[in-house]
Amino acid sequence: MKNFVLRGNLCTSRTRNCFQWVPHGYLVCEEGRSAGMFAELPERFADYPLQDWGDCLILPGLVDLHIHAPQYAFRGTGMDLELLEWLNERAFPEEERYADLEYAREAYGIFAENMKASATTRACIFATRHRQATELLMDLMEATGLGTMVGKVNMDRNCPDGLREGTEESLQETERWLEEIEGRYERTEPILTPRFIPACSDAVMRGLGRLQRDSGLPVQSHLSENQEEAAWVRELCPWAGCYGEAYEGFGLFGGDGQRTVMAHCVWPTAEETALLRARGVFVAHCPQSNTNLCSGIAPVREYLDMGVRVGLGTDVAAGCGESIFRAMADAVQVSKLRFKLAEGAGRPLTLEEAFFLGTKGGGAFFGKVGSLEAGYEMDAVVVDDRGLARPGGLTLRERLERVVYLSGPEHIRAKYVRGREIFVR
Amino acid sequence: MKNFVLRGNLCTSRTRNCFQWVPHGYLVCEEGRSAGMFAELPERFADYPLQDWGDCLILPGLVDLHIHAPQYAFRGTGMDLELLEWLNERAFPEEERYADLEYAREAYGIFAENMKASATTRACIFATRHRQATELLMDLMEATGLGTMVGKVNMDRNCPDGLREGTEESLQETERWLEEIEGRYERTEPILTPRFIPACSDAVMRGLGRLQRDSGLPVQSHLSENQEEAAWVRELCPWAGCYGEAYEGFGLFGGDGQRTVMAHCVWPTAEETALLRARGVFVAHCPQSNTNLCSGIAPVREYLDMGVRVGLGTDVAAGCGESIFRAMADAVQVSKLRFKLAEGAGRPLTLEEAFFLGTKGGGAFFGKVGSLEAGYEMDAVVVDDRGLARPGGLTLRERLERVVYLSGPEHIRAKYVRGREIFVR
Repeated sequence: MKNFVLRGNLCTSRTRNCFQWVPHGYLVCEEGRSAGMFAELPERFADYPLQDWGDCLILPGLVDLHIHAPQYAFRGTGMDLELLEWLNERAFPEEERYADLEYAREAYGIFAENMKASATTRACIFATRHRQATELLMDLMEATGLGTMVGKVNMDRNCPDGLREGTEESLQETERWLEEIEGRYERTEPILTPRFIPACSDAVMRGLGRLQRDSGLPVQSHLSENQEEAAWVRELCPWAGCYGEAYEGFGLFGGDGQRTVMAHCVWPTAEETALLRARGVFVAHCPQSNTNLCSGIAPVREYLDMGVRVGLGTDVAAGCGESIFRAMADAVQVSKLRFKLAEGAGRPLTLEEAFFLGTKGGGAFFGKVGSLEAGYEMDAVVVDDRGLARPGGLTLRERLERVVYLSGPEHIRAKYVRGREIFVR
Repeated sequence: MKNFVLRGNLCTSRTRNCFQWVPHGYLVCEEGRSAGMFAELPERFADYPLQDWGDCLILPGLVDLHIHAPQYAFRGTGMDLELLEWLNERAFPEEERYADLEYAREAYGIFAENMKASATTRACIFATRHRQATELLMDLMEATGLGTMVGKVNMDRNCPDGLREGTEESLQETERWLEEIEGRYERTEPILTPRFIPACSDAVMRGLGRLQRDSGLPVQSHLSENQEEAAWVRELCPWAGCYGEAYEGFGLFGGDGQRTVMAHCVWPTAEETALLRARGVFVAHCPQSNTNLCSGIAPVREYLDMGVRVGLGTDVAAGCGESIFRAMADAVQVSKLRFKLAEGAGRPLTLEEAFFLGTKGGGAFFGKVGSLEAGYEMDAVVVDDRGLARPGGLTLRERLERVVYLSGPEHIRAKYVRGREIFVR
């Protein structure tokens, strides 16, 4: 692992409400971690090779807590449908195609390439129920250099025949997947991925709960996305006081050091919010997806006030693209509409808060990740905003805001994950 | 005016609910107008030069019914503020700078260049109160080849000293502006532009009403954007039953052949909706602006059901960019949140409806504009979506939807306004 220094306008979230800026500062990378941000380069780092990025912004890499790799193929289509319709008409038929490894290679190749080119450095990724295609996706993600968690999906009920696993098969394939990839990757981890309660029988959920206990693997799934879906779960698990309690009943809802992330959480009961907090479960807030599928707007202000851990997800393809900058802007925007339209909603999110969610907030799911501060793993992106033409000078905060609202992958000049250069251009 | 034929996948709105497609079809331009869309090229056009765009999409040019040119300079910043705060802290201070023609030349130059590169072919543009900078903007817009209406803004109260005109001065400068530009442009028209009731005294409004009657010029302004603003107008014009009636009282609210467009219309009373319809006033629906400034969500479904005329506006810089494709996606998205969160809201907009609003709906403000059908002025854009990588085949409708949700100016290969080539690349 090389040691080096990046020079540029450094910005990171110190707290949820506060940026830390070091204009024309020095970001030192030692052994894959930040050794700090400095206005003047300390003597002890003077021998490290230095890349001077001039007036560019240097930001922590972005974190996507929820994205479906197989759905990337149809991103930006099928937007006139609600969740359960959309699953049946768009998502499931596409996912069936990943039984074909040639198709998977082409589709996942596009996904991996675009993820690599984006500002994202870490992601929690759903694959499909297919073991082999999931391994292929992991191979491709490993090759990008990003730090990802990838899950073979479990689903043995309430889905098309072509996607439905047998109950035993679902658990056996999961175990075989874990055996096959053991030791294969440096930066790609498996994550247990029951699709959601409606698609997983009690037996599969119990089996995954056991597997989690034995392996200590992290867990990702969906929670309280849509009111119809939540009502369905109440029917399926009448013994659970809330949707989250159903996961908890199977041992798949955080607590005892278990890292769990639940996408959406748009319609929590008060009990569910308390449980999210008590069990340290991360919420993957997916504002654009929740808009596109008419799900609603998650109560993020309330989650933050209550101490629930929150990050951002793009949820491709219910969200139309892989940009976490866009997810930050979307998070601010929907929070404003919720503030305006929903009875008793808290005040809108600020730029500072949205940036925090997309970096340090979600980064905590990966460990010491999502910041340029000393001790954090050195994930960084260099953003050149000169292409966003402007007549006058802007403050650094204004430049960052423009990057959040207006930038695309073409503005990313370089990206690093754990101190490793992903690309420079 | 040259006659020519474009070949490609033609798509236009036949009605609000229905696209008309001609796959690998021929779009014929004669004397600046469409002579029709054809599956086979009729013999009588066989001698016209033909540009074959292969598998590209050919769409009508997009129409932006509301954009502030001077605010383009600070697009994507200041997003954490509400309307009246935002005007005082961001919009007004920036607009004061257009007293300086050198600054105006640089800032408007960037605006004009980016508008030219976008998919927009027609726009209703606010300048500032400055006559000379407004003329400069008109010169620049004329040079782009787009078809635009540009307004010198009138404002003589409730604004910073640097922007406030004297009452007489406001009217005199407007008349002088109109004299100076008379006959100067082929495709750039003046439009009367009282900023909004709170910024215009009764005397200015009456004067503009007279000027409109004498000149027949079109009118643009803002209406019922924000609840605080609407309450303010009730205080300022206690004689008016609603905000729209205040404009009507001054002779600036459509009717008798007057072309009027009002931006926003988020909080109409039932009386105001009826008046919009009765007077044939166009609503410029600006979904992203209304979100960013916490204004709310306009009742577009109700407007369409009632027969109110509606188009889309980007409202830069309360909207962060000039893309009307993005405004289409935003219009669908906010309509879903309104459907989900607002009591009694109508069903969400569809892709077909949003595309209609951004083309034919707004185009009607410019005459026979916004469609590829025979008889319409030949505004068209050629979109090459190959850069939006995908593994499988898509229907043409799916490709169009992806263009709406995902494309940027880099996907526009060519643009035509009234049959004139703006660029080919």
